[in-house]
This record gives sequence, C-alpha cells and structure tokens, in this order.
Amino acid sequence: MWFLLTILLLLSNGLTEGGVTSTYVRKAAPSVEIPKECFPRPPGYNAPEQVHITQGDYTGTSIIVSWVTPLKEQPKLVTYWEADDKKGITRVRARSRTTTYRYYNYSSEYIHHATIRRLKYNTKYMYELGKGNGTRQFWFTTPPESGPDVPYTFGIIGDLGQTQASNQTLEHYLASGKGQTVLFVGDFSYADVHPFHDNEKWDTFGRFIEKSSAYEPWIYCAGNHELDLAPEIGEQVLFKPYKHRYHVPFRASQSTSPLWYSIKRASAHIIVLSSYSAYAIYTPQYRWLKQELPKVNRSETPWLIVLMHSPMYNSNNYHYMEGETMRVVFEPWFVKYKVDLVFAGHVHSYERSERVSNIQYNITEGVSCPVKDPSAPVYLTVGDGGNIEGIADSFIEHQPSYSAFREASFGHALLEIKNRTHAFYTWHRNQDSMAVSGDSIWFYNRYWFPKEETSSNTLT
Amino acid sequence: MWFLLTILLLLSNGLTEGGVTSTYVRKAAPSVEIPKECFPRPPGYNAPEQVHITQGDYTGTSIIVSWVTPLKEQPKLVTYWEADDKKGITRVRARSRTTTYRYYNYSSEYIHHATIRRLKYNTKYMYELGKGNGTRQFWFTTPPESGPDVPYTFGIIGDLGQTQASNQTLEHYLASGKGQTVLFVGDFSYADVHPFHDNEKWDTFGRFIEKSSAYEPWIYCAGNHELDLAPEIGEQVLFKPYKHRYHVPFRASQSTSPLWYSIKRASAHIIVLSSYSAYAIYTPQYRWLKQELPKVNRSETPWLIVLMHSPMYNSNNYHYMEGETMRVVFEPWFVKYKVDLVFAGHVHSYERSERVSNIQYNITEGVSCPVKDPSAPVYLTVGDGGNIEGIADSFIEHQPSYSAFREASFGHALLEIKNRTHAFYTWHRNQDSMAVSGDSIWFYNRYWFPKEETSSNTLT
Repeated sequence: MWFLLTILLLLSNGLTEGGVTSTYVRKAAPSVEIPKECFPRPPGYNAPEQVHITQGDYTGTSIIVSWVTPLKEQPKLVTYWEADDKKGITRVRARSRTTTYRYYNYSSEYIHHATIRRLKYNTKYMYELGKGNGTRQFWFTTPPESGPDVPYTFGIIGDLGQTQASNQTLEHYLASGKGQTVLFVGDFSYADVHPFHDNEKWDTFGRFIEKSSAYEPWIYCAGNHELDLAPEIGEQVLFKPYKHRYHVPFRASQSTSPLWYSIKRASAHIIVLSSYSAYAIYTPQYRWLKQELPKVNRSETPWLIVLMHSPMYNSNNYHYMEGETMRVVFEPWFVKYKVDLVFAGHVHSYERSERVSNIQYNITEGVSCPVKDPSAPVYLTVGDGGNIEGIADSFIEHQPSYSAFREASFGHALLEIKNRTHAFYTWHRNQDSMAVSGDSIWFYNRYWFPKEETSSNTLT
Repeated sequence: MWFLLTILLLLSNGLTEGGVTSTYVRKAAPSVEIPKECFPRPPGYNAPEQVHITQGDYTGTSIIVSWVTPLKEQPKLVTYWEADDKKGITRVRARSRTTTYRYYNYSSEYIHHATIRRLKYNTKYMYELGKGNGTRQFWFTTPPESGPDVPYTFGIIGDLGQTQASNQTLEHYLASGKGQTVLFVGDFSYADVHPFHDNEKWDTFGRFIEKSSAYEPWIYCAGNHELDLAPEIGEQVLFKPYKHRYHVPFRASQSTSPLWYSIKRASAHIIVLSSYSAYAIYTPQYRWLKQELPKVNRSETPWLIVLMHSPMYNSNNYHYMEGETMRVVFEPWFVKYKVDLVFAGHVHSYERSERVSNIQYNITEGVSCPVKDPSAPVYLTVGDGGNIEGIADSFIEHQPSYSAFREASFGHALLEIKNRTHAFYTWHRNQDSMAVSGDSIWFYNRYWFPKEETSSNTLT
C-alpha cells in the first residue's frame, strides 16, 4: 500500500523541476583570523568596550546594553537621552549588573548588562558609557510599535567569526544602510577552535562587531561554537562564556532559559530556539514552544520567524541531516502555525528551500519525502558569515527537490518587511558590490497572503 | 528511482509476515495508589529508611548505598562485612555524604549516599545502617568478575509507581528469586502527578521498593516523571528530587552527568541514556556515547545492553513516535556496534520488536522503513510496572512489521544470560503465576552468534 502512496506523492508534489545550484565561483581566500592586535582596546582610562545591545523585553520598549571594562571600578551606569534633545538635558541613568567568569586559564574582565526600560517607540536615543577620557557615546533607534503593516528591515548573519571574510560580510551589511536589527543565527567568536578555547577571542570578537552591535540590536541565537564544553580541561558548564557575555530577555516570554525565547519587533514575532538543548516532548524547550506558538497574534505581528542554529533542510554534505532530530519534533508545529521563515546557520554556505513539509511520515508506512506545502516555512541557511573554518563547498550531487537555490559563498541576507502581505528578501555575497543580490524573492505572508512565490533564481 | 527502491526494500525485507498482538485480556483493576499510611517508617529512633543500592563503579567492586533519616544526627556510616564472617569480626565502615533539598512546600529529610569500595567479586556482604533500636541490617551480593561466559540474570522493570499493580509486579519479580540486578528503565514514584509534585510520594516510593532495592542493585535510568519541572511553582531545576535521591557512578565511565553513564556487570556492558536531555551532535550526551561505544570489549562483556526511557520502536498509540528524535541520532550507532538489546519503558504496555533498523533514510530519497537487520538490536518496551496512569491498551491497528509481539498487560521481564552466545529472555504478566511467561525467546549474541532468533510467540 505504502509504495503506491509514495508514487502518488512523487507524482503530485510538483517538486520534480529541481532547484538551482549557483555556478558562481567565489574568489578563493584563506580562512585566517584577523590577529588579536588588530582589535585594540578603545583609548581612555577603563574605557567600556565590546558594546552590544539587544531587545530587552517582549514588545520593544526596552534595550539591554552590555559592555566590558578592564577594571571593576565605576562606571556601572549607562546614561541615555533622546537624540532630539541635543543638549542631553533629559539624561537618565540605568544601572548595570556586573558579572565575571573563569574559563580554564582565562579570567574575564568585568561584563556589565544594563536594561533600559520604558523607551518610546520609533525614537532615536543617544547613550553614553564610561567616564573621563574613557567616555564613549553610541546611539540606537527603538522599533515602531507592533502593527500588521509596519515596515521593518532585518539583517540576517550567521557563523560570523573574525576573519577577513567576516569583516567583509559585516562591512557589506553595514554599507547597505538598510538593516535595523540583526538576526544572528549563532556561532559567534569561534574561540573554541583555539587551544583551551582561548577566551580572548571572545573579547576580540566583541570589539569586532561593536561597529554594528552597539548601534542596532542583535537578536542572539546560540550555536555549537557557544557550547564551550571541554571536560578535558575541567570545563563542563555548557554555554558558559556565551551566557555571561550575551544576555537576552527570555523571562519576558515566560521562557526558563536564555537559550530559547521570543520577542515581538515591529511587524515580526521572532522565536529563537536552541539546537543543542533538549527538545523532546516534556522538556522545557518543548513545553515553552508549545505554549508560545498559540500566543502569536498575526493581526499584530503578521510575520512569524524562527531562528535556530542547525538547519532542518540542508543539502550540503557538511552537517547533512544534523537537523533531523529537531525537525521530527517541531516541523509539524511550524506547518500548523504557518511559520513564514526559518533562518538557520551552521552550514558555511547559502541555501534557500522550497516551501516544503515532511510530516506525513509515520514510521509504519515508511513514506518520508518533503512535499510542497503552502503552509510550510521557507528554510534559509545563512551560515555564511565567513569564519576560520572556511566554506562548505560540497553540495549533495543531485540537488534535492526541497532545495530551491544554493551557493557556496559568504554573505548576509536582508529581509525588508513592507506590510502584512509582502516582504522583499535578498541575499548578498560579500565579494559583490552592494547593488548585486545573489538571490532575491518576494515572500508572501503565510497568514495573510499564502500564495506561491517565485524567485528570479528558481526561474533561471 | 526511489520508489523502485522502496518496492525492492518491501519485497526483500522479509517483514511481511507480521507480528503477534496478544489476545490476553488483563483483569481490569483501577490504577489507584496505595495510601501513604501503608508505607510506614521503620520502627526505632531515627531509623534509616528508603534503602537502595546501585553499582558504585565501572566494574562492579563498589556499591553505592543510599538511605534517608528523619534527623540530621548520626549515624552517617554504613558498616559492612562478608556474610561468611558470621560474627562480623571484619567489620568495616564507609562514610556517607548527606544532602537535602526543598521542593516548593516540601523539605526533604536527610538523604545519605555512601560508596563502599574494593569489594571482592561474587561475594555476599552484610551491611548495617542506624544505631540503637533504629539499627537495620541488609545484604547484597557482588557480581562475578566480568568475563565472556559468566552467567548472570537481570530483572527489567519500568514505570513502576506505587499502586497495587506496582506491588504485584515487584512481588512477582521477587518471587521468582532469579533476578540478581534490576535494570530500571525510568519513571519511579509518579510524585509529579500529585498537587505540587507531592514529594512525600518520593518517600513512600523509596519505602515501597526497599524490599528489593536494599538487597540487589537497581541500575537507574531517568524517565519523564523524574523531570519535576514546574515553573508555575518556581521549580525549574530539572530532575531535582531524582538527582538528590538516586546517585549513580557516572564519573566512572567519564560521563559528565548522572543522566547518562555505563557500567560493566558480569558479562554485560550496560549503557544508560537520557531521553530528556540534549543528544544532538556536539552535545555532552552525544559526545559521551560516541566515545563510550568503541570502548565496549565484547570479549570481556559480550552482551551490550542499552537502557532509555522513551522507546525508539513502539506501536502503541500512547507516545507513538516520541522516540523518533533520539532514534534518528543514535540508531546508526546501535547497528554499527551491534547492540544486543535496548530496553525502554514509558509506554504502559509490553512490546518486543523484530531485529530491525531504519537507517537508510537520507531525506532526499525519502525511503524510510524499518527493515530486518541482523546487526540491529531487539527493542523491548517494558513500561508495564503498573502505575497510577493505568494501562496503554490502544495499539496501532495494523501491527507494524517491526513489532514482533505486543500485549497490554503489566509485568516485568527477566534476562538470563547463559554464556557469550545465549540468553534466555522471558516476560511475565503480574496476574499470572510464576511458571507462566507471556513472552519468551532465546536471544543470540550479536557479536558472537548473530543468528536469527525465533520465539514461541512469533511462531504461534
């Protein structure tokens, strides 16, 4: 019986035309990290460094500001004011909590996290850290209040590291000037590839990304390079450097762990998941996601976006099928709740899937094939920040039907949400000029306008 | 192409004859717990209670003795001597470590764990806890030194709880007099089904199983009822009561968590896994199992046995396919390393699988069907201890080809290892007399004698 079913499925799934494997050949470049001395401390006495901000609550009226100082002494305060207030008359202060950690032979400096609350929507704020000749000023802009037709643009970056390619990617993203918030899909510093997980690499990474992360929120998602598990040197606490350095507002979404949480931002509801925590039924992450998904209000935030590190659909030989163990648990919910887009990293390459689901499998019948499904998300692998581990340039030979477009390049993506129905998505190779997009498609919202999309790439 | 493959697989897998669904109808009985007052404290001043022992090292020359006392005061010692030494002249003492915990409105009494080391193999020891009129004496027998043809008998019990059915199961197991060690596949007290996870139920459970657990080691495996996650009452530490009450020798097998570990015992190498912890690639459990499996020496311990709570093969509607997320990660290793038997619980019913594997699936081709595989384990679901949640009496209608025998009864199993090639396995309904076995089969070792087995049940 079941083989008849599979034949029927094959004939009906409309996935036989096949996707596109790009013929673009990236200029070869060694994956060497930028030397530590190229990321110097900022000048001034006890100057704050490694400044990064993220959304601090569920709705976007708070910001968590994090920074590091070499000395324990003051300042522990962040001072902020509306940018329109040129003289800074209405200055307000928020106090930080300070933490440190040890990792094998490394002792961190003083890591400060301050939450600024009750901000106005859609407003530019200045903020200041440090004092005396170590004072530094930055700014951020709060998002507009959530609403179904609020335009907003996200940058998507993954597996960044701190190589020349990483810098190309970040500069390229910044040069576009379009991104308002970065969705970062995991694998930050790659400190763990160095002897004893050289945590100074966490510091240099913090300095490296500051040109972006001090000015626009990065929404953090943990990758395998954040695990920092090294029992051989007595380091058994998972995610130790990451959890000390990058704070997220997980409690605001009733999560019990910083590794999974959600935020609403403009017209998007963003859910962050952990590929390296438990997610079987009964576990905290499973329970949390189960109660979170029904809360999504598509009339307020039409765009439902999921971030995770390990992709569920990937046709690269690197990390092939590593996402299966999460897919078999969560994919039915993604389809049920009509998730628009799932962004992942992990594979150092770029890939965009068709809207497919593979949820009819029931072990007994043995039918398990991705089929076109208008309620399914598009899965985007953007693990192409460019890091010390190099490019993942070995794709499964015969491009699987679920794969719409794939290319072994480094780069970043942009998601320009226009309204409740349309979002313009582009992917940019970091070796191209800004005007060029390596992949582009108009995404249609699954709740408001669940029509089939076509991209320039799948039509070539 | 792939549908041809599936047809070929179907024709060649030899699984078409189908398994047996037992027609036995268990006498109906309500799943009511035995009242707390039926598990009184032992008499005497500050008398030790809830005594349970487990193997304390990798090889079987240590024992962890655990017990609870109402008061903090002494004794914290366990005194032990060889049973042959009738007068107890060679008495030795081992000191315990004491712990307590709070769970919502419950405060535990004093929980003691003492490890007795450097025991002789194959020797009966007496041990004594408490003092004055609270003194209590017990005994245990160490296993024979590991060797390929050492006979040894394991009892297998799961999802026990503390109902009349639980008691029937445990008494039935004890009455056989055959078991030398219990492999317990998780779900202990079911305290968590009571308001605020009434932790007094952990105490009554400890008293209930003492008649077995004080005299023969129980090898513990954590189930979902050990999670005790209750953020609504501020309880977010997973496995809190379980980890305080049941200690295991996880460090002896280089594990970093008590939730997964292994021991060698007589002719068996037993691996305990956690269904509710992370096991994706890069996670601690994955890393541990990857380095543990190659260490198994089948010339020393021919029988490779895995315990987990959630079954990978289950054809009951209860918890159907919950084990998939672990199966897709670990099953290829079970086949590669020729695991003999995988015992699980969770489903309150009994099931024995064929030797099948389902590891050819590669997402692209979509072929995913369990096929006969002489290198694969037999999967046994023994979640039939009998607990407050009742029987799982709803099987998938058309019995899947991977299911060899299934029956909705409570009971326990016995595995009588005879030598490096043969082990006699029986399953016993708790409503039958001892002489009856509801299922029986001679298992042949996958390393030494990988022939196909036939059971009385599959032949009927």
